[in-house]
Amino acid sequence: MSNPGSLRAVSTSAIIVAAGQGQRFGGETPKQFALLGGKPVLVWTLRQFETCPEIDEVVIVVHQDWLQQVKADILAHEQFQKVSRVVPGGVERQDSVSAGLSSLSASVEYVAVHDAARPCVRAEAISRVVLAGRAYGAATLAVAINDTVKRVREQVVCETLDRSSLWAVQTPQVFKYDLLIQAYRAASKDHVYLTDDSALVERLDYPVRIVEGDSDNFKLTVPGDIKRAESILIPG
Amino acid sequence: MSNPGSLRAVSTSAIIVAAGQGQRFGGETPKQFALLGGKPVLVWTLRQFETCPEIDEVVIVVHQDWLQQVKADILAHEQFQKVSRVVPGGVERQDSVSAGLSSLSASVEYVAVHDAARPCVRAEAISRVVLAGRAYGAATLAVAINDTVKRVREQVVCETLDRSSLWAVQTPQVFKYDLLIQAYRAASKDHVYLTDDSALVERLDYPVRIVEGDSDNFKLTVPGDIKRAESILIPG
Repeated sequence: MSNPGSLRAVSTSAIIVAAGQGQRFGGETPKQFALLGGKPVLVWTLRQFETCPEIDEVVIVVHQDWLQQVKADILAHEQFQKVSRVVPGGVERQDSVSAGLSSLSASVEYVAVHDAARPCVRAEAISRVVLAGRAYGAATLAVAINDTVKRVREQVVCETLDRSSLWAVQTPQVFKYDLLIQAYRAASKDHVYLTDDSALVERLDYPVRIVEGDSDNFKLTVPGDIKRAESILIPG
Repeated sequence: MSNPGSLRAVSTSAIIVAAGQGQRFGGETPKQFALLGGKPVLVWTLRQFETCPEIDEVVIVVHQDWLQQVKADILAHEQFQKVSRVVPGGVERQDSVSAGLSSLSASVEYVAVHDAARPCVRAEAISRVVLAGRAYGAATLAVAINDTVKRVREQVVCETLDRSSLWAVQTPQVFKYDLLIQAYRAASKDHVYLTDDSALVERLDYPVRIVEGDSDNFKLTVPGDIKRAESILIPG
């Protein structure tokens, strides 16, 4: 990765979070390993990071039970040059990102955190958010919200929000390595558990930049989402 | 529709709003008339209302320029028993719904307002929201928001919202006829223009009930959405 003799000054590592159990997805196979056009979801996700020129290294975080299967079955069949290691995750998403962070060398300058269950991310979008992360220190892909959003209590609308300023954030989210480490330490110290890395960085009052992505980069949530992802990824 | 001699006590009319110009969709054909699996989007939408047993009558609101084309081309090729008329819309969505409302007979008891650009709505979901509208006076289909939502100013995150209580509302939205008429009169009097009928009813402090729908019932926004709708509507 970081090579003092090269012209390449910036080292950017990606942490692919693939450790979730995905209760709403159902079945015995977590969604990130479900088959999509005959290949595990994770493979589709990795391909985009592999081809993105702004990514130097990829670390995959998986549940302990899937460690061998990912190494022996999934990675053995694909030629990913950038995947440097597969590490076991923790109970919560935050524990898993933390495990990924701990596995990185301290020479890494920027970290892109991405959910494996977003296989429709495009290499071009990864590049854009990495460049924004390098320019501003913290950046996330996001899409403007088209639907009207309501705050609801006990199945009754209590407020209609002003949607003009609302964005749904996606991943990758890209941060200066030192900043993300600091955010994770602060969260751990304060016993804060969140599923959104940007929010951990916002807690430090650091401004997070929005990079416009597109709605195809959705997170697989229910089994029917596989069909939607196939319609995006497999032309025809 | 309302037949004093029948056992059917409730008359429910649907207003299908198909009058928009859809700037983000591009092209010369508004999205509600774009071809989806060889048929105009509007036809797919109408089929679900046609087969929904809770809907007694359907009124379509279109832009003046499309009036003849909808009648002569689109409706002439399909056998919709429930479509009673096609009326010209106005400049804003609110004007169009208003035109649809004005065309209904005063004997209508409940009104379901639906955007033609949501062709993936299911008859079964229409039934559920109509039943809730009859039970509570005002109801809307909606889906819980899975992504983290941020309030953004000048491309920088300023707030992460508590997503546990956030729902994205869809259509149909179903209201007691008198209530919706009252909401539209109040909005007109106060010069309020909104794209969400529920918000107009909320202005009267009337509680709007949330009915859980599903994410397939999305609103066509960009040309790529046609492919997504085809993957939902056309088994393959």
